Amino acid sequence: MAADPLDPVRPGGEVIARCRRLFEPALREAVSVLHPWGAMMAAFTLGWSDVDGRWQDDGGGKGVRPAIALLSAEAAGGDAEPALPVAVAVELVHAFSLVHDDIIDNDERRRHREALWKAYGVGPALLTGDALLALAIRQVAGRPDAMGYLSAALVELVRGQTTDMAFEQRSWHGPDQVSTAEYLDMVAGKTGSLLGAAAAAGVAMGGAPQFADRMWDMGRDLGIAFQIVDDMLGIWGDPGVTGKPVHSDLRREKKTLPILAALSSERTAARELSTILVSRTMDDDAVRRAAHLAEEAGGRAAAQALAERHLASAMDVLDECLPDATDLRVLCESLLNRVN
Amino acid sequence: MAADPLDPVRPGGEVIARCRRLFEPALREAVSVLHPWGAMMAAFTLGWSDVDGRWQDDGGGKGVRPAIALLSAEAAGGDAEPALPVAVAVELVHAFSLVHDDIIDNDERRRHREALWKAYGVGPALLTGDALLALAIRQVAGRPDAMGYLSAALVELVRGQTTDMAFEQRSWHGPDQVSTAEYLDMVAGKTGSLLGAAAAAGVAMGGAPQFADRMWDMGRDLGIAFQIVDDMLGIWGDPGVTGKPVHSDLRREKKTLPILAALSSERTAARELSTILVSRTMDDDAVRRAAHLAEEAGGRAAAQALAERHLASAMDVLDECLPDATDLRVLCESLLNRVN
Repeated sequence: MAADPLDPVRPGGEVIARCRRLFEPALREAVSVLHPWGAMMAAFTLGWSDVDGRWQDDGGGKGVRPAIALLSAEAAGGDAEPALPVAVAVELVHAFSLVHDDIIDNDERRRHREALWKAYGVGPALLTGDALLALAIRQVAGRPDAMGYLSAALVELVRGQTTDMAFEQRSWHGPDQVSTAEYLDMVAGKTGSLLGAAAAAGVAMGGAPQFADRMWDMGRDLGIAFQIVDDMLGIWGDPGVTGKPVHSDLRREKKTLPILAALSSERTAARELSTILVSRTMDDDAVRRAAHLAEEAGGRAAAQALAERHLASAMDVLDECLPDATDLRVLCESLLNRVN
Repeated sequence: MAADPLDPVRPGGEVIARCRRLFEPALREAVSVLHPWGAMMAAFTLGWSDVDGRWQDDGGGKGVRPAIALLSAEAAGGDAEPALPVAVAVELVHAFSLVHDDIIDNDERRRHREALWKAYGVGPALLTGDALLALAIRQVAGRPDAMGYLSAALVELVRGQTTDMAFEQRSWHGPDQVSTAEYLDMVAGKTGSLLGAAAAAGVAMGGAPQFADRMWDMGRDLGIAFQIVDDMLGIWGDPGVTGKPVHSDLRREKKTLPILAALSSERTAARELSTILVSRTMDDDAVRRAAHLAEEAGGRAAAQALAERHLASAMDVLDECLPDATDLRVLCESLLNRVN
């Protein structure tokens, strides 16, 4: 749940870097109103300072969500500036969710450094997460159009996270098993909703509210595609690049799409995979074997196909509503490359 | 930080009960959209069910915050109904803050039953708190007037909680000691801001937005007064009535007003109190002795005087803006009685 599928360095970084220059001053200003202690923790979790509050810049998150908000506004009206509060808000909500997720999942590392709770304690970290969310809401409190999408995304985000957590208790087989439809509904909330809010509120602030509902769907499809890719990277990716502990999803019995797809196949590998998962003895060898079997059973191919289908749906919306959205397309295409 | 100064049973309950009948159906409807597991945890923390999800009604919170919102609207325009979303929102924000506070403070009991994290685990409880906040925001997302006050209150609430937590690390004496002004600023955020939002957004929704800023001040003063009273009850109150563990604030080195006031006096008792606090050996005898010395040094009288002063300021606003607000006045007066 704690993973950020949009974090790793990728091509198309030029567009993101331009957006980052636009929104980062506003983000820093938003955070500056916090209690000094809270501001120090926020700066740490946003990658602006080390654990003692000394200035550094390790890049932090790459800012895909604010970039989508700003580029959606540009595509709508030519100017990103009206969407700045939305850009800041979605980045703050994202930071809030990572801080709380790391507490919930007991993850000690984030972006190659300590998780906030590990560095400052659970209580202070929890409160800093709340502070980031409060700041996010204040950014768009006076803009009901944007606020509607942001608040809907928040409800969906938490619902998706709760569902994901509940899935860990579900069986791999039988009447209790997680269906693909349930998985898609979960990731649409967990990962898709905030991208949907960024796109919808961005385009609305940019002057084209008539496209906002379509852009909400666009962002959700984008989010689904990238959560699937992230699930794949969690099984077959290089932990040195992803920053995720190797195979942590498998160890936690996370119901990820590649595994669900593999289990539903008729191949021999699926039966052996099932035996390993049901036995719950997930040592290093078993986990490596499970990853291999999931690929052999067709889980990787099925996941990639589904991710591409959702990405294509997202691109269809852009074609239809914002055919001149060059930079937004560049950004989405660069994200697409992670699939290939 | 976890205390709710407005919780204990008190006179004036008739007005609160009437308000509760108004807002509780809307509150239940708001919570019903949660994931079933989240809804079960929400129902537990709101006092609607036991830990296994079986229906019960232990009263939960008394609903002072929604009552203030509804009565402010009534006083403004004669009808409480337009303020229903505000009433639901402030109760949800209050519930969110209690759930997170209990995690932060490691408090195992709340309202004479297990705290949510104790019953279901830290991760699920944290997420349920987030869910309650998300629902609160959605209630008023489309009403920028109300949203402005609610989001300001959220930022202030978290800032006050962070300050309160930071105070625990501060010294009782010397350049690092907490001043009365700092204390008042902290409780205005921690306890006052949500009452301010209830009153301001309530009166705005009721049709008198011209009074909203004054009612924000009114609510904050009310909150300050009642946090001071709560601090007093935490030292000299009956734990069987307050539901708080006896002397927990003293044990935690919470910088509460009665103690700060006692320490600033010139009396002999103040010096002995200071010695006990600085020694940090807060066993049962020491804590009892400290409570006695704080009263002897004048801390109780000073706290009561300050609480009464802030309550009087709050009543002045009502006299001026809403002289016909009979029920709101009854509610405030019944709360006043806790001081006397």
